[in-house]
Amino acid sequence: MSFQLKGRVVFFATNNINKFNEARKVLAEYKIAVGMIRVKTFEIQSESLEEIAVTSACAAFKKSNLPVIAEDAGLFIEALNGFPGPYAAYVYKAIGNKGILKLMENVENRKAKFQSVIAYCASERKLPLCFKGEVVGVITKEERRGNAGFGFDPIFEPLNGGGKTFAEMTVEEKNKYSHRASALRKFAEWYKGKR
Amino acid sequence: MSFQLKGRVVFFATNNINKFNEARKVLAEYKIAVGMIRVKTFEIQSESLEEIAVTSACAAFKKSNLPVIAEDAGLFIEALNGFPGPYAAYVYKAIGNKGILKLMENVENRKAKFQSVIAYCASERKLPLCFKGEVVGVITKEERRGNAGFGFDPIFEPLNGGGKTFAEMTVEEKNKYSHRASALRKFAEWYKGKR
Repeated sequence: MSFQLKGRVVFFATNNINKFNEARKVLAEYKIAVGMIRVKTFEIQSESLEEIAVTSACAAFKKSNLPVIAEDAGLFIEALNGFPGPYAAYVYKAIGNKGILKLMENVENRKAKFQSVIAYCASERKLPLCFKGEVVGVITKEERRGNAGFGFDPIFEPLNGGGKTFAEMTVEEKNKYSHRASALRKFAEWYKGKR
Repeated sequence: MSFQLKGRVVFFATNNINKFNEARKVLAEYKIAVGMIRVKTFEIQSESLEEIAVTSACAAFKKSNLPVIAEDAGLFIEALNGFPGPYAAYVYKAIGNKGILKLMENVENRKAKFQSVIAYCASERKLPLCFKGEVVGVITKEERRGNAGFGFDPIFEPLNGGGKTFAEMTVEEKNKYSHRASALRKFAEWYKGKR
């Protein structure tokens, strides 16, 4: 079956509905429609977000033959030598926010940053493109939840974010500060200009 | 250049000299000589030790055209939902033994196990073979170092190991108990029988 895609549309290869919702709202600002495709991709064990995002995007494109973005993100805590880094999802599942707070007990330097890389792949002939976003902030002393957010959001407070953790913000608020929204905006600017 | 390998010889693709030394001593018991080859292999990000070991062994074989073993190991702590698991090397580099001990503060259940998978690859036509080893034990309350060991050895005390951590043992002693030695022995038994 073939069909024509009207306007601008891209597919986000992810199994994380929260990431998809964040992306949907950011890309809507640019009038880019986004579909979610769940593709079993294998993530390579690498400490490079770019490498992981590119591999995922290319694998998803190969299987779907659709213009695809994939994302990889990491949380890098200065006092823990960058831990959990690109392994954030695994570490979250195993030890959660409580584990990170325990590692950070009596640690004065609370500096941390989230990084996101969006990779875009829509052709086997062209190299995939990467767009990076970053947000700096601090690890809080306790979890602070609201109605939104996921993963380490309840323990991450972005600089100049009004003292709220990502989890205490609405998706729209989080999108003003977040690494992912920043990477998505760079992608969107490029994507809008490309035709 | 081609040359004939006399007797039994296999190449261990690793960048860890400690692992190589453990392997050398175990395989010597079986009169199998082992060379070390440092090959830049990429490890896939997977929670399966088998998958990682197989991918590494196949990549090393492809580059060297030599009969190759590769290993992947993990430390699985029960109270931490299996953390750090297959990411042991990365986690060790970031938070070390002190990080694990902090996560285990006031945790009564100290049960943990090391697992090792040795993958053997010597042909593109044959599927690589895997050999597994495991050792159960406990996470100690503090680091106990001796003259040997590496990684998490100073905080892991195997069951029936005379109350010593792996780091308080000689390589020969550690090889009586360790996950890696156990996997290597299974490999050696098979390798000796195969011709």
